[in-house]
Amino acid sequence: MSVILEVTIRHARREDVGVIVAMLADDPLGGARERIETPLPQRYFTAFETVDRDRNIQLVVAEDGEGAVVGCLQLCILPGLSSQGASRGLIEDVRVASRCRSRGIGEQMVQWAVVEARAKGCKLVELLTHHTRVDAQRFYERLGFARSHVGMTLRI
Amino acid sequence: MSVILEVTIRHARREDVGVIVAMLADDPLGGARERIETPLPQRYFTAFETVDRDRNIQLVVAEDGEGAVVGCLQLCILPGLSSQGASRGLIEDVRVASRCRSRGIGEQMVQWAVVEARAKGCKLVELLTHHTRVDAQRFYERLGFARSHVGMTLRI
Repeated sequence: MSVILEVTIRHARREDVGVIVAMLADDPLGGARERIETPLPQRYFTAFETVDRDRNIQLVVAEDGEGAVVGCLQLCILPGLSSQGASRGLIEDVRVASRCRSRGIGEQMVQWAVVEARAKGCKLVELLTHHTRVDAQRFYERLGFARSHVGMTLRI
Repeated sequence: MSVILEVTIRHARREDVGVIVAMLADDPLGGARERIETPLPQRYFTAFETVDRDRNIQLVVAEDGEGAVVGCLQLCILPGLSSQGASRGLIEDVRVASRCRSRGIGEQMVQWAVVEARAKGCKLVELLTHHTRVDAQRFYERLGFARSHVGMTLRI
């Protein structure tokens, strides 16, 4: 790892949508899924508004010292009956701007999510990572996550 | 598979909490996590009320012809920016009463969830299943799910 880049984690705002989508698109899997156009397709803003209204979901960004957005993460608090009615925290859409990788930004965001999930009463934090993202799996293992489950998906 | 047991899928009610928790507890992993007492710990009812209030979460049960609850499933609709702002459906806590297994109840519940997720605009349905639940993985593969992801968890 190079020198750590200290970031501030804050809630995403409407004006962050463009840079978030650019980060989502900037990897081999995301590139095929997103549409980077000017202007950005309206559906991204519609989705942002849905997320923003949802009390159980927090879409956050990591901001560097100059106020540039260099990472994003979505945390969803999922209530449920199992494990004696304990909520679970689901981490999704973790991305770090390619120019800033390996500088501890992902770790700061995930640690934020763990603290936040605990504060919301969660006993477990979980995530799915594509089986080809071997570096991501190693990263999460370093943070204490176990490869305990199989993540299964169905495109519909 | 034995003879198919046709079930009705309906939203769970407060009076179903006991039988749902009994199903959650009735397997090697769940048995260690739940507390089956009379009366049932209040936290299960509190969790039910939280789930019941959440517009994005549907806790459903499968009811047989006599009105007995023989299965449960929780579906959460997760909005997000990725995949062009498409929502995802997350399936959790799928259980079938042990006396009724291998009669197509799980399949009817999962198919209900897929139809419901599609109706809510989801492009993807996902789930985590413990790596030891090999039969469950085979079951989901038979329904078209791919073992595309690694499910990682952290107890907090």
